[in-house]
Amino acid sequence: MSSHHIVRDDQESALIIANGATCSQELLGQLLEWSPYIIVLDNAMQRVTELGIKVDVLLGDFDDDFNPEKYKDMQYPLEIVHTPDQDKTDLEKAFDYLIEKGFPAVNVVWATGKRADHTITNITNIVRYRNKLKIVILDDHSKVFLLREKFEKWYTAGTPISLIPIGKVTGIHTKNLKYPLADEELTIGYRTGSSNKVLQDGIVSIEHKEGDLLLMECFD
Amino acid sequence: MSSHHIVRDDQESALIIANGATCSQELLGQLLEWSPYIIVLDNAMQRVTELGIKVDVLLGDFDDDFNPEKYKDMQYPLEIVHTPDQDKTDLEKAFDYLIEKGFPAVNVVWATGKRADHTITNITNIVRYRNKLKIVILDDHSKVFLLREKFEKWYTAGTPISLIPIGKVTGIHTKNLKYPLADEELTIGYRTGSSNKVLQDGIVSIEHKEGDLLLMECFD
Repeated sequence: MSSHHIVRDDQESALIIANGATCSQELLGQLLEWSPYIIVLDNAMQRVTELGIKVDVLLGDFDDDFNPEKYKDMQYPLEIVHTPDQDKTDLEKAFDYLIEKGFPAVNVVWATGKRADHTITNITNIVRYRNKLKIVILDDHSKVFLLREKFEKWYTAGTPISLIPIGKVTGIHTKNLKYPLADEELTIGYRTGSSNKVLQDGIVSIEHKEGDLLLMECFD
Repeated sequence: MSSHHIVRDDQESALIIANGATCSQELLGQLLEWSPYIIVLDNAMQRVTELGIKVDVLLGDFDDDFNPEKYKDMQYPLEIVHTPDQDKTDLEKAFDYLIEKGFPAVNVVWATGKRADHTITNITNIVRYRNKLKIVILDDHSKVFLLREKFEKWYTAGTPISLIPIGKVTGIHTKNLKYPLADEELTIGYRTGSSNKVLQDGIVSIEHKEGDLLLMECFD
């Protein structure tokens, strides 16, 4: 995955390390290169500390016998944010925290790959942050983000592009995809645009009218 | 995961081995104990053969330089089903194949854990097989299945239960869950019932009126 695929803003970048499966050192290394502001969720902290990564914020509800204080010295200075609200996931709380701090965008790793409920919740919940925070979820096989109503980006021919509707999405038009869509509708569970491909080197254009449409760039 | 969690009918059982992440030997061993009818998808065949598993059907579109014929001798007798239809995933084609053969139920492994587009498509597409095939998707951390309108099952206290709506689900009532729902609505991306828990040893009851509701039993 080349680095131009990853969120990079003029403003300070942020990285959330969640509590799912560990990604490759290569992906993590690419993201750490820009010295992002790093939030680690709950007991992922142990794995992160073992990798020698300096963390800015440790955030979580800290249940199941997890003691955040033990990281205060070895990660000094470390902000500990205790978020006991049971109505939100730790990942949502981390998004809220970044919005409050004024960050425009965030990359998220370790948000997939273990429990299916966490994976599907983490991926689909990003739609509620439209216009609040630009979120990109990354793992060793995938890059996932929410599309604005009109999306354009340069891709090389053959790049796999999956369009996954979170609910129902209407009025979808695409240009430069192998299986083009013309004013079509996609509905999660019934009709998705998984496993499409870029037709030729150049701009891919994807428009939609209503609903939440995720774009996934995935690789085997 | 105890074996009572897994599909077992009086009729012949079936197992689909898809093309995602390999599961533990323990889970695979539990499923193989009943000598199910085994369908392997596309180039997962190499990994399956290396594990010494006898396969009944090899199904796929067999693109990207994959030669199914080479498994004919080492897996004799082996049925090879070539399914070039690009409108369906190989997993859907395998479901269709089992329905045609008269199977009432199937367990699915290796359907999650690599590409996010495949994981989310494989999990959410099971809703379209309601009343046609009883499908259970399993991995090392998860067991996923579609709920009928009234669902009851005995669980031990503390068992994690996540309710994930595929689209919008209305009129949800639960009994014996830590965070109960009373005539409530869940919508993917906006409000899900992830990370609930069984309150006390006994029957959990989950009813809903309209929509597709997945139950996920997941473990860290």
